[in-house]
Amino acid sequence: MNITITAFERSPDGGKGLARDTRVRWALEETGQPYGVRLVSFAAMKEPAHRRLHPFGQIPTYEEGDLVLFETGAIVLHIAERHAGLLPDDAGARARAVMWMFAALNTVEPPILELQTAKFTEGDKPWTAERLPLVKDRIRHRLGELSVRLGDAEWLAGTFSAGDLMMVSVLLRSRPSGILDEFPSLAAYVARGEARPAYQRAFAAQLAVNAGPSLAG
Amino acid sequence: MNITITAFERSPDGGKGLARDTRVRWALEETGQPYGVRLVSFAAMKEPAHRRLHPFGQIPTYEEGDLVLFETGAIVLHIAERHAGLLPDDAGARARAVMWMFAALNTVEPPILELQTAKFTEGDKPWTAERLPLVKDRIRHRLGELSVRLGDAEWLAGTFSAGDLMMVSVLLRSRPSGILDEFPSLAAYVARGEARPAYQRAFAAQLAVNAGPSLAG
Repeated sequence: MNITITAFERSPDGGKGLARDTRVRWALEETGQPYGVRLVSFAAMKEPAHRRLHPFGQIPTYEEGDLVLFETGAIVLHIAERHAGLLPDDAGARARAVMWMFAALNTVEPPILELQTAKFTEGDKPWTAERLPLVKDRIRHRLGELSVRLGDAEWLAGTFSAGDLMMVSVLLRSRPSGILDEFPSLAAYVARGEARPAYQRAFAAQLAVNAGPSLAG
Repeated sequence: MNITITAFERSPDGGKGLARDTRVRWALEETGQPYGVRLVSFAAMKEPAHRRLHPFGQIPTYEEGDLVLFETGAIVLHIAERHAGLLPDDAGARARAVMWMFAALNTVEPPILELQTAKFTEGDKPWTAERLPLVKDRIRHRLGELSVRLGDAEWLAGTFSAGDLMMVSVLLRSRPSGILDEFPSLAAYVARGEARPAYQRAFAAQLAVNAGPSLAG
């Protein structure tokens, strides 16, 4: 069954791999699934045709025959459940890997996204300079707790899993602020994720879109 | 296998059902699973014994024999996958139900939690009065998109599922601000969730803890 995902025609990060299609590409590469990509402009993302796939007008989406999914977590879990490589066989280990997916998306990512909102959506507000340190401290609080749990383990729950894929992807978004590097064990964990051949292929594929000649050109 | 969850000894909401243990109780009630509850004080939540169960020092946790889980989404999905009542049988419908769980937790809940942070953590800051309307508008934006997708459907994806359980639970947190009631179709959707006997039992169980005589008393 052919798989098609959507991605930004031009990613706001200019190809640093922080857009969420990279997470889906990475999952498809880890499990050896070929896929096609349909690029979507910012304007088209908010139009009815795209909103039929994604009610919140975002990327990525995932189409596989009649199945249409949005939400990166749901897409990665769907891929991980159907193809070997991202979830352990043991039921308990599997539940723990899925737990780390949710922890990445619901506990670690929200304060990181709050910083992006503070910088970009509220960047011109008079309170922003004074408020940013508070927002950054909320990220540090969570990363501190995460680094304690990770300890000197290679991955969060035994072998590499969809939980690590999601946590590494989320943590990458805390690197531009410098906060990730304040936690050397987490920075090393992220680097292990980035070193995986499947990540390298996913990163290169999104970079090829964003570093290529302008489509509008 | 005995199931034990943790919950606040005293919930910050005083028993309005907004603490996350209510979501887990609801899932256990929908699937007819008996469970025990261990109450945890704010101080104990941050101590090593509890952090061994939950690295971020929160509730709820879920213990079932050797399996220990945290993250409400992961716990509810674990329950839904093992017991009938929260996920459809058809693989595509199942993936869509799980998608709505992630959408609730990763797309709809973050702006709602941002408002709580703005009110409680930053409530004493000089910028809060001017900033709150921006934060509220971000919630309205998401709820507007959600209400368009829900349309006049009873539930988000066919029959009631874990996706609805999570979305109703998340939306409930937008009621104290008055924003939920600005979207009558979503308010009615939440009311349908609250009317379910399983929700009623879950709500009553958490209320019994929080309305009871003080444990410190």
